[in-house]
Amino acid sequence: MSAPDRAALHAALDASTLCHIAYADADGIHNLPMACWRDGEHLYIHGSNGNPLIRALVAGTPVCVAVCLLDGLVLARSAFAHTMNYRSVLMRGCFERVPEDAAKRAALDTFMRRLLPGREREARPGNAKELAATTVLRIGLEHAVCKMRSGGPRDDDADLALPVWAGVLPFELRRGAAQPEPGCTLPLPAYLQS
Amino acid sequence: MSAPDRAALHAALDASTLCHIAYADADGIHNLPMACWRDGEHLYIHGSNGNPLIRALVAGTPVCVAVCLLDGLVLARSAFAHTMNYRSVLMRGCFERVPEDAAKRAALDTFMRRLLPGREREARPGNAKELAATTVLRIGLEHAVCKMRSGGPRDDDADLALPVWAGVLPFELRRGAAQPEPGCTLPLPAYLQS
Repeated sequence: MSAPDRAALHAALDASTLCHIAYADADGIHNLPMACWRDGEHLYIHGSNGNPLIRALVAGTPVCVAVCLLDGLVLARSAFAHTMNYRSVLMRGCFERVPEDAAKRAALDTFMRRLLPGREREARPGNAKELAATTVLRIGLEHAVCKMRSGGPRDDDADLALPVWAGVLPFELRRGAAQPEPGCTLPLPAYLQS
Repeated sequence: MSAPDRAALHAALDASTLCHIAYADADGIHNLPMACWRDGEHLYIHGSNGNPLIRALVAGTPVCVAVCLLDGLVLARSAFAHTMNYRSVLMRGCFERVPEDAAKRAALDTFMRRLLPGREREARPGNAKELAATTVLRIGLEHAVCKMRSGGPRDDDADLALPVWAGVLPFELRRGAAQPEPGCTLPLPAYLQS
């Protein structure tokens, strides 16, 4: 993968808070949404030790992890040439467990920092019991496949003169105004103000 | 499923433009993003006849289709109690092909109307060749499973007095300002103006 392709792959994962993890077992196919974050050349997830997905992953079950960002609708003059702009990453392989030591705490701090930089120093940190109940897993990006589409519609020449509006309607996952809990009178932290 | 649960399931699917379709074959597990739309008690997708996923689905391959909307980050006083608000729908089973007749054209019109009401009457309709190259498939919602979380954080009582901002940071997939193609001087259609 070229350096620009690698940067685009990283950017797509860094813009994603959710992945879908598919695997098969005796009950059939599963496909579960999970929170995720990238650090270096790995995608990380975490969950309760007792979660069936976490247990399957700890046991080394092969997976296909998908991330997809919808960037826009591409509106062509012909119905057939309509399409979407997107960034999609697929990762196949097996998750590995992040060790039960400082690495696990550091990984969870990274997750918080990626979502809300600074909050990892404000929230009450996990205690020994909470950390012990949590499994952190990661999957390598070395075989990740990234597919993207961007730009405008590509109509057939014969359709270009049709009186149909053509262009792109962009989509973006945006953060709204933070909603404090009833009774929380603390000032809004800087990372929630933009 | 109760009537309110069924309405919530429909609303989650109607707010989703993408699904992830997982299936297994001799090459392992796959998990592919696809555009989707709901009509009645089915979720629909479409694709090129030659697409490997479409071919696998036409052949009756069992799938697990996932849709997940991230509605917000739930910020608790303790790191451990942080979570997400979301709406997730899982559909297991097999897709069935929408017949090669008026039903296929009607389904594609519905897709366009759901995205951009009115545009299905403006864009140049698919001709016989384009329609013949496209497969439309649907999967029933009768066994769909819907999981959701909403509302604020649920901290332990012992954490409630900590000086940590608590509440919800909402997320929403929003449409930006439409970007016309260079050379497209037509007025912006009504369905792109809001």
